Amino acid sequence: VPESSAGDLLAAARGGNRAALARLLSIIERGGDGARGVGRLTHGLGADAYTIGVTGSPGAGKSTLTSALIRAMRCTGDRVAALAIDPSSPFSGGAILGDRVRMGDHALDDGVFIRSMASRGHLGGLAVAAPEAVRVLTAAGFGWVVLETVGVGQVEVEVAGQSDTTVVVVTPGWGDAVQANKAGLMEVADVFVVNKADRPGADETARDLERMLDMVGDGGSGDGRWRPPVVRTTATTADGVDDAWRAIGDHRAHLEAGGGLDERRRRRAADEVTRLVAAGLMARARAATGGPRAAELAEAVARGATDPWSAADELLADA
Amino acid sequence: VPESSAGDLLAAARGGNRAALARLLSIIERGGDGARGVGRLTHGLGADAYTIGVTGSPGAGKSTLTSALIRAMRCTGDRVAALAIDPSSPFSGGAILGDRVRMGDHALDDGVFIRSMASRGHLGGLAVAAPEAVRVLTAAGFGWVVLETVGVGQVEVEVAGQSDTTVVVVTPGWGDAVQANKAGLMEVADVFVVNKADRPGADETARDLERMLDMVGDGGSGDGRWRPPVVRTTATTADGVDDAWRAIGDHRAHLEAGGGLDERRRRRAADEVTRLVAAGLMARARAATGGPRAAELAEAVARGATDPWSAADELLADA
Repeated sequence: VPESSAGDLLAAARGGNRAALARLLSIIERGGDGARGVGRLTHGLGADAYTIGVTGSPGAGKSTLTSALIRAMRCTGDRVAALAIDPSSPFSGGAILGDRVRMGDHALDDGVFIRSMASRGHLGGLAVAAPEAVRVLTAAGFGWVVLETVGVGQVEVEVAGQSDTTVVVVTPGWGDAVQANKAGLMEVADVFVVNKADRPGADETARDLERMLDMVGDGGSGDGRWRPPVVRTTATTADGVDDAWRAIGDHRAHLEAGGGLDERRRRRAADEVTRLVAAGLMARARAATGGPRAAELAEAVARGATDPWSAADELLADA
Repeated sequence: VPESSAGDLLAAARGGNRAALARLLSIIERGGDGARGVGRLTHGLGADAYTIGVTGSPGAGKSTLTSALIRAMRCTGDRVAALAIDPSSPFSGGAILGDRVRMGDHALDDGVFIRSMASRGHLGGLAVAAPEAVRVLTAAGFGWVVLETVGVGQVEVEVAGQSDTTVVVVTPGWGDAVQANKAGLMEVADVFVVNKADRPGADETARDLERMLDMVGDGGSGDGRWRPPVVRTTATTADGVDDAWRAIGDHRAHLEAGGGLDERRRRRAADEVTRLVAAGLMARARAATGGPRAAELAEAVARGATDPWSAADELLADA
């Protein structure tokens, strides 16, 4: 896809053409030069969308909660986009099913755009693709972008952590998972939601989370630091969704008041540039070690005719 | 440690000085310029040692089996070195305990050298350090080097797979672990040992492994390809250890007859050079994204004044 045609698609998407928007997101998803072409066009267009990450274990009810939150977001008058991101299983039926369910809820609302993005298998692909996608959606005028990921792997947690507000969804009896994922999820969570709170054990789970927050944080919000609130919801009946929405709003206000939003976005931009630099260097490494000279040097190392450090230095000189 | 002193240590180690050998291995373990200095000195010294990887889940009896195999190796007249490699837990009591137990078995034998190597926390550290250590041991005249690792993580399996012959140790009832680790371990195994074969379930485990080999391999050894034999041992009583030793010998003969040993060592050398190139590029990436210009560019990306691709390109130009 040449840049001119990406430009046409972008103009159409900014004019409200949903098919053009979907095509742009597909280009980003595929990566490579196409994504790069789109990426070069979208910076500085539109007011920054506010991004909300929703993550948690499979079956925690993330999609249902997201759908309910979209309704609340729409009450602000802004348009809403939701990306269901599924890095680990490229062809997961789960993500597609989730899409359909939520599509049904908002099918008649032109102000809502929902899409799955899957990894095409290239390393770190979605960590690079997600911010590009957010930038396209910003350019297309969406005021809210939800990034929904399964919070099980490093990449998933990383993607969720790229949001302005990250919501970690747990269910009653989540104790073991809390132990297992503690480090990664405690770090990215701005709001905890105990979903399916009509089930037994919801109070204990909320208490466990508070205790964990006591242990990691020092002092709570009294010193100006944000302590993630723990909210109980039953997304299927919309019980408690207002509380979750209020907690998100509180976090946004906290970030905006203290300069934390700018700081967060600056850090995210730095991470994004670092990722692209790393990807560029990785391409150089592949080129440097894939050629005939690299094979000769490996042969020489295997024979003991040279040492691996000198071989690496020679390849690095041209990389 | 300047190179001259590394040279002195190497000369002493080649003369049979065990303390000098231990110091060289510590230098390699620490990495950095010291390791590089040693690495530049050791290529092409001594006839290549034959390396045997021993890997498997914790508690599979790897250390006891290794100790029993060392006795068999010593019958060839060659000296034997064993490195117990523990990448995941830098200060694991397990490795140290294993050391002591085996040390006791061979404490009076000057032809046996046993040592633990632990990760000092730098990424891919042991995958880089292990072949350097093997080269030092080769230079010091050891004919056999055993690399013992816990086969649970990617790095561990990678290190074990850097051997001429890789022995994967399982225990009866290992079914679940087989499922979990199948991909990585099936790929690196040249010999399977079902240890603790006096326990119930040993036959079933051996059958499971054979079935897995039926599924992954196509045809067995009839077409000149190696099919890993499955051997039953009880290392504590030395039952079956002769069979394991014979299987290792068969694999070595197979490799040497078919040119596979040279091919394997060439591939290993290529991997080693690639790892050093990657480490060099990673250092460049850190330098490129750690400076003030990188911070300015991140700020510009966050403001929407430039796009992340252009920012990355500028940093890559100097990397």
